[in-house]
Amino acid sequence: MEAAAASLARATPVGTAVVNRKQATVASKRLGSVSTLGGPLFVLPVLSKSQRRETYTCAKLATNPGAVTAVSAMGSSPRTGGLIEPDGGVLVDLHVSEQERESKKAEAAELPKIQLARVDLEWVHTVAEGWASPLTGFMRQNEYLQSLHFNCLRLPDGTFTNMSLPIVLAIDDEKKESLAGVTAVTLVGPDGNDIAILRDIEIYKHNKEERIARTWGTTAPGLPYVEEAIANAGNWLVGGDLEVLERIKYNDGLDHYRLSPAELRAEFERREADAVFAFQLRNPVHNGHALLMTDTRRRLLEMGYKNPLLLLHPLGGYTKADDVPLDWRMKQHDQVLEAGVLDPATTVVAIFPSPMHYAGPTEVQWHAKARINAGASHYIVGRDPAGMGHPTAGRDLYDADHGKMVLSMAPGLEKLNILPFRVAAYDKTQSQMAFFDPSRASDFLFISGTKMRNFAKDNVSPPEGFMCPGGWQVLVDYYQGLQKQESSA
Amino acid sequence: MEAAAASLARATPVGTAVVNRKQATVASKRLGSVSTLGGPLFVLPVLSKSQRRETYTCAKLATNPGAVTAVSAMGSSPRTGGLIEPDGGVLVDLHVSEQERESKKAEAAELPKIQLARVDLEWVHTVAEGWASPLTGFMRQNEYLQSLHFNCLRLPDGTFTNMSLPIVLAIDDEKKESLAGVTAVTLVGPDGNDIAILRDIEIYKHNKEERIARTWGTTAPGLPYVEEAIANAGNWLVGGDLEVLERIKYNDGLDHYRLSPAELRAEFERREADAVFAFQLRNPVHNGHALLMTDTRRRLLEMGYKNPLLLLHPLGGYTKADDVPLDWRMKQHDQVLEAGVLDPATTVVAIFPSPMHYAGPTEVQWHAKARINAGASHYIVGRDPAGMGHPTAGRDLYDADHGKMVLSMAPGLEKLNILPFRVAAYDKTQSQMAFFDPSRASDFLFISGTKMRNFAKDNVSPPEGFMCPGGWQVLVDYYQGLQKQESSA
Repeated sequence: MEAAAASLARATPVGTAVVNRKQATVASKRLGSVSTLGGPLFVLPVLSKSQRRETYTCAKLATNPGAVTAVSAMGSSPRTGGLIEPDGGVLVDLHVSEQERESKKAEAAELPKIQLARVDLEWVHTVAEGWASPLTGFMRQNEYLQSLHFNCLRLPDGTFTNMSLPIVLAIDDEKKESLAGVTAVTLVGPDGNDIAILRDIEIYKHNKEERIARTWGTTAPGLPYVEEAIANAGNWLVGGDLEVLERIKYNDGLDHYRLSPAELRAEFERREADAVFAFQLRNPVHNGHALLMTDTRRRLLEMGYKNPLLLLHPLGGYTKADDVPLDWRMKQHDQVLEAGVLDPATTVVAIFPSPMHYAGPTEVQWHAKARINAGASHYIVGRDPAGMGHPTAGRDLYDADHGKMVLSMAPGLEKLNILPFRVAAYDKTQSQMAFFDPSRASDFLFISGTKMRNFAKDNVSPPEGFMCPGGWQVLVDYYQGLQKQESSA
Repeated sequence: MEAAAASLARATPVGTAVVNRKQATVASKRLGSVSTLGGPLFVLPVLSKSQRRETYTCAKLATNPGAVTAVSAMGSSPRTGGLIEPDGGVLVDLHVSEQERESKKAEAAELPKIQLARVDLEWVHTVAEGWASPLTGFMRQNEYLQSLHFNCLRLPDGTFTNMSLPIVLAIDDEKKESLAGVTAVTLVGPDGNDIAILRDIEIYKHNKEERIARTWGTTAPGLPYVEEAIANAGNWLVGGDLEVLERIKYNDGLDHYRLSPAELRAEFERREADAVFAFQLRNPVHNGHALLMTDTRRRLLEMGYKNPLLLLHPLGGYTKADDVPLDWRMKQHDQVLEAGVLDPATTVVAIFPSPMHYAGPTEVQWHAKARINAGASHYIVGRDPAGMGHPTAGRDLYDADHGKMVLSMAPGLEKLNILPFRVAAYDKTQSQMAFFDPSRASDFLFISGTKMRNFAKDNVSPPEGFMCPGGWQVLVDYYQGLQKQESSA
């Protein structure tokens, strides 16, 4: 793992695009980035300018009713090889080409500016790489309203693509005034660099209360994403088409894990996956998680798939303060693979760049939809996905079953196989995590996130078989470091 | 009008069903209920038991994935004549047949009971007559969640039918306990009569806060429907299939206006309408409304339709306390037709039995969808449909443009022609209501609902040409009576 990660960190990506199997194989051979362990791989697809332009243009057209024929034609092309087709038929890539970069940068330097917060940057990253295909930028009002009311967008051919979270950029009154008559702006990153041009902009009202109520099903104070990115944001939203100047990096030592959907597709093609099952997570992996991932692979093999691969896909964008930070989670996941709890030969680990909303049934659709674009044909969904405690009432915010019910019925996710999983708990009779058997309920111990956290804080070992020792040690180190910080503060 | 209404009141309906043009004509001739004025007509369709059974059974099947073939076959049948097809292909009718009535009543007498509030009864009425086709009863959880998250339900053939409001029945903890193991219950009306049997019931949690937030886009206290029907309702919802024992009547002198979708379809067929444009309202009709209705007819004639009919369709269920009550509104509408402001020869007046949610862009979809089931091919939508003031913030609850935008994009409403209308205002230069011309804005006077109400309360005549004098007098009578009541209280 470590060696593979290091070799990946040296590869300098310049862009991403949809590639077919042949292109991917050529590209990965050229880069020599094939890991025998099957850890995360970085594959740099190389497409001609005209190929890249075609991808970009058609994706843009995907939201334009005049483009039915072009999009349908692209949609039926074999460019995605044997993997599930991306939403809208074409994987969006919003990075400017190498050839255009300097002229676009020069143009960006002269345009009016909008300052991005960290979460905004994460959205630029996410949309630019095509996780939200066929979306080509920050939502204009018609997309925003469809997302808010229907959790899906109508495509030119009359079908729907799922889009449950509004992906929007807020600006304040003063900025709005200053943009009167402006059609293109430059988005500036938190560190002051020009990140992207936003074109054909449309400014419309940011109805915050309604956005919050329809997205979270509550307006109670204390929703983490709301406090981070909405409550103090401007009263206007600006939509438009993105042209991203450079691949977005965070220089936190984890960029090599941030594989784009195109890169993941290329990797799945290279490994000749005939099914990809995605596991979204924002928490450490315990043996209960591992059990259901290995069990999923077993079931897929039983169903006749020859080479189902696991996409272990921790979320890397904004998370709330009491979640384990990304860098510690990645260390923990590394340990789980090192220990063989998950099989590196059938697992791809990568970071999903989206910020976290904690919006339960609404958000789990986004988590699933984005993975389609990365080539996942199967999506594992558990109890209360993307859920949290109600910020003011003493209960869970969402019904634990609603996430998987809503996901299984969501418009635009028909082609994705939803795999609800059984609850795993610690089986005291076997000293290991096992699927809960209600006929002998007293044999099982449920170890909640809170309980796990308290064990780690107090340096109390959890029951043997709950988590691999190396992974557990990472958590102990994190929580003990946190306590030291707190006591010295 | 008066004579026609009186003759209609004498007709005693025993049920409703889908009828084709020939059946409708035969039925209306037999009843002698043809009005030369073209006012509201009551047509009693007569179908055989097997015909009725077929309609009912197929409608039930419409939400059953196993019934694709049956429903598709029904959907393509010519039973609905030249009118727009009802949602799901078959108009739902949930009334028990004449032959079964006594045995069903006997069964109902023995079943466990659920007491209905007035609003619940209005929903039973609405669903039973097929306004919510293909829904066949109160929503079970899978329908409820789809409605809440997607504003639409997936049909067996993979297409979507619009369903933006949850149509649900709440019960309290005690009632829920008492129904353990029960599969069928009797719904009892506010006056103690057995109304319907609810079969194959499913009880699930009533997540009130989430329901309110996702339906209204706010949880602010003071939403009228919430206070009337949700805040004090039980913590559980019970879904199931309805069998309604008798046609629902309110005995308020207005039942003859309560035409079912089947009756309206029969009437449109009898009059050989080739387009039906529906106008939903919960307020008195002023000459600005009339202008846009007559202008709509003119436009439809220009488009080549030979006989477009107006469905003037006031909402008859629950409305908030400061709206003009239904009986006064009907008197006012009568005057508008008597005065010829609307042409009785091309207008059908009927009452839409649904309760009002005041849920703006979410509710306008329901208002439009229900009219498809009554045969409307065109739907007029104005500024801020189903909107109201924010209950706590000093602004409108919804953006005035969102209603028509959301309506035009809503899944399942593709076959309906949405007709957004231009704003009408009082043109002082012509002393009449006219379409607002921004190039000479100062010539126009906007008379808000509040201003109109204040005129009527103070018995001050509005500008000549604002409303026909007879219609205005109805409002003056209503508001002055209200003031007398208040001052003597």
